[in-house]
Amino acid sequence: MRDGGAKKGLKSEYLHGLALREEVTPEDARAVGRLVESTGFFTSAEVEIAVELVEERLARGPASGYFFVFAEASGELVGYSCYGPIPCTLNSFDLYWVAVRPSEWNRGVGGLLVSASEEKIHKAGGRRIYIETSTRAQYEPTRRFYERRGYSRESCLRDFYAPGDDKITYVKELK
Amino acid sequence: MRDGGAKKGLKSEYLHGLALREEVTPEDARAVGRLVESTGFFTSAEVEIAVELVEERLARGPASGYFFVFAEASGELVGYSCYGPIPCTLNSFDLYWVAVRPSEWNRGVGGLLVSASEEKIHKAGGRRIYIETSTRAQYEPTRRFYERRGYSRESCLRDFYAPGDDKITYVKELK
Repeated sequence: MRDGGAKKGLKSEYLHGLALREEVTPEDARAVGRLVESTGFFTSAEVEIAVELVEERLARGPASGYFFVFAEASGELVGYSCYGPIPCTLNSFDLYWVAVRPSEWNRGVGGLLVSASEEKIHKAGGRRIYIETSTRAQYEPTRRFYERRGYSRESCLRDFYAPGDDKITYVKELK
Repeated sequence: MRDGGAKKGLKSEYLHGLALREEVTPEDARAVGRLVESTGFFTSAEVEIAVELVEERLARGPASGYFFVFAEASGELVGYSCYGPIPCTLNSFDLYWVAVRPSEWNRGVGGLLVSASEEKIHKAGGRRIYIETSTRAQYEPTRRFYERRGYSRESCLRDFYAPGDDKITYVKELK
């Protein structure tokens, strides 16, 4: 299947009809902002941060510590992930963002992005991947998504985000 | 007691013979680097990060999210702390750094810096302060220092920094 359709001139690999690429272009900042907003999952402050990470990467390159996997169908961004090594650790990585356009939910795009990120983290020497999420009911599907993929809940900071809204940290060890 | 001696033209408050100031000057980047290095506690990657936070603050102002308390004696930096609000939380703050020049250890400088930081965090609306540290034996005095000041160990991420080197997160709730 090669109906993914990538942006011209950018190196992509094709998986299940999606074009996956790592290279970051200036257009990605706006596309990521629109995509993250479209999920309805994030506050405007969170959307702003998602965009800032793309901009930081464009400005500073790999030294920014932010790496991306973009999934495109017919040249349109349908999902992306953002990860990076955690400074001052031997081989721990954060998976900062995984977001998929609602029209593509339940089609395996999120799973593909997580697998692709894990593979790239492993190649880069990463052996532990951390994901932080909230205990709010809204994130129940998110938590199940990661648990199905071998992430285990390792710690909880009570009232971290706000009263009654705790932060959970998941970890997955790569062999 | 007013033998602290602050830098000319910078607003400082005096406490136990030390001049405490919040304003950040270009000279602070190098002074912080030297100070953090002098403690012998931090890797060169960590020293670099300490300096980067000062530079980030100089470049972006309060929008950087990094705030400082510098403690000076006779115009020389003898200790400092760095803290800031945690993005996307209601009122949680990170206390990123507290470092004191070895010649001034066990004289209360660290405690003063923590108290001053807590006061400023409280004034800025912060209600929870987080501190992350390592389980390495080297950090045992650090852990006792925070425990004596009302910080409680809330979570632990095993092998976070490296195999056998866990990350502990302490929290203190401000009323």
